[in-house]
Amino acid sequence: MQELRIDEINNDLVIVANNRSKRPMDKIKSQLEEEIQVEYDSYCPFCRGNESHATIERYKIEDSSGWITRSVDNKFPIVDELSDEIYGVHEVIIDTYRHNGTFYNMSELEFQNLFKTYKNRYQNLIENKNVQYVNIFKNFLRKSGASLAHPHSQIISLSIVPPEINKEEEVASQYFIENKTYLYDDIIKREIKYKKRVINDNKYFLTIVPYASKYSGEVRVIFKENIKFEQMSDNYIKILSKVFKKLFENLYKINGYNPFNLCIHTHSKELENSEEFNVHMHIIPRKYSFGGFELGTGMYVSSTNPEELANKLRFELN
Amino acid sequence: MQELRIDEINNDLVIVANNRSKRPMDKIKSQLEEEIQVEYDSYCPFCRGNESHATIERYKIEDSSGWITRSVDNKFPIVDELSDEIYGVHEVIIDTYRHNGTFYNMSELEFQNLFKTYKNRYQNLIENKNVQYVNIFKNFLRKSGASLAHPHSQIISLSIVPPEINKEEEVASQYFIENKTYLYDDIIKREIKYKKRVINDNKYFLTIVPYASKYSGEVRVIFKENIKFEQMSDNYIKILSKVFKKLFENLYKINGYNPFNLCIHTHSKELENSEEFNVHMHIIPRKYSFGGFELGTGMYVSSTNPEELANKLRFELN
Repeated sequence: MQELRIDEINNDLVIVANNRSKRPMDKIKSQLEEEIQVEYDSYCPFCRGNESHATIERYKIEDSSGWITRSVDNKFPIVDELSDEIYGVHEVIIDTYRHNGTFYNMSELEFQNLFKTYKNRYQNLIENKNVQYVNIFKNFLRKSGASLAHPHSQIISLSIVPPEINKEEEVASQYFIENKTYLYDDIIKREIKYKKRVINDNKYFLTIVPYASKYSGEVRVIFKENIKFEQMSDNYIKILSKVFKKLFENLYKINGYNPFNLCIHTHSKELENSEEFNVHMHIIPRKYSFGGFELGTGMYVSSTNPEELANKLRFELN
Repeated sequence: MQELRIDEINNDLVIVANNRSKRPMDKIKSQLEEEIQVEYDSYCPFCRGNESHATIERYKIEDSSGWITRSVDNKFPIVDELSDEIYGVHEVIIDTYRHNGTFYNMSELEFQNLFKTYKNRYQNLIENKNVQYVNIFKNFLRKSGASLAHPHSQIISLSIVPPEINKEEEVASQYFIENKTYLYDDIIKREIKYKKRVINDNKYFLTIVPYASKYSGEVRVIFKENIKFEQMSDNYIKILSKVFKKLFENLYKINGYNPFNLCIHTHSKELENSEEFNVHMHIIPRKYSFGGFELGTGMYVSSTNPEELANKLRFELN
């Protein structure tokens, strides 16, 4: 029996069609890309030692062996600093100097360095007076949109608030008007009480499989406190790194070396009533492609059972 | 220099970034699937002679050799007739009995049979009192969402108006309020005058590369007259078939055996002021995948130059 669900943070319409997973296509495991084995590739502009092939460096974290994580200008920026229409800066953050250093095998310390770099670049870019929003995301593997093999993230400042953020902020604001309570607080309370869609719950972050998502298999990490992204303390970053390490270990167990996107949704710079919106992260596996139904209607078909998936991914922090 | 464009029929935000086509990834031609050579595959439920492997037939067009085009129930429907939440019927239209009969090689007559079938099934499904919209689309090849190799289309009736249609109808309505002229009429006039984005212009249909589209390389076929989809005359269907035959011949010359989606946007059943909206078709090549930027922001990056692409695809009807 088909069910219509609404993703409460953005009003996306999702048809939950459990029968669809029996389709012939889905029996064939989508072919995964081969895992990179080498820690260094002499042709890779993002490997340590090949810095001369990359663009200007904006930030780095080092240890005695050299740089660990760094941020450089994107050679092919989506936005530019000279455009009147869409001002922005576009940097590439090299997750780790290791060519084979993926979210599936990164250490807690590597995640910490990466999140510290996210925070530093975010703080730096949001300050510009023309900037309304700073967008952090990651494409892992070709199928998710990545053009270079060496694992990397991207950060883009924008002179406008992107439509998807606008929508989420408006939905949260409308929720407050109607309920006199905060949307994210209510989601957090409800999910903790219901338990079955919770992957991990700790002091700072709730990690869940959302009740409804247009992206089959999405995992959502929600900040429990209403802080701005750039206010993350070292302790926050430490806990977030533990969450990511465990989460991606479990994702690897289930899906293998699967392409994914990470999209971080933060407050737009001039958002009034910023207490209505909580920072959160969408982790989107890219197993399936949208077809003409989704493209043509803006409705999405999901064959994920959130409770089942959460059960497979659940973990405790040590 | 980056440019921000708005797709005027749906308000999608598109960043036109011409430099992006120089990215390393784009130098590597995405690998195309192998073309099907055989006209008959004994394992295929959609081939003529294998009807017992398919579901109930709802309509067919025959000649002396047997059925040419037919519509059958979808074995794995997105919607169902029993759901209270999302009522609908989901049929699969087998474009042609030929296993290797793709849009890239179909004859004018095959296209005519297919469009006649679209019209028949549309007429039939829209009549149900619970139905608010009937959606016709096509996924060609795995990358576009197709699960079976034999070329086929899909038609789905829905008890709700899909968000994307709602949005397009609202944009058209708002345009009329602001301008006292019709959006689609104005687009048609402007594009014919400008010429450079026109692929083909004839009595009934204007085929263009849109000024802005979130789908890099999209081709749009717009009905010039304000008729409902089910009002297409035989002559309309004949001309549309000529357009599709030529268009896909040219697409094949440029892109080869490329995955694509066809999405037909028709009037919702109870649309007031239906004269504000024209039926149109989105033909969407699936060369590229959206990345985390598009998923996270709802903004799209395009590296297509519409004038260049239209120039390559332009044709006259004979």
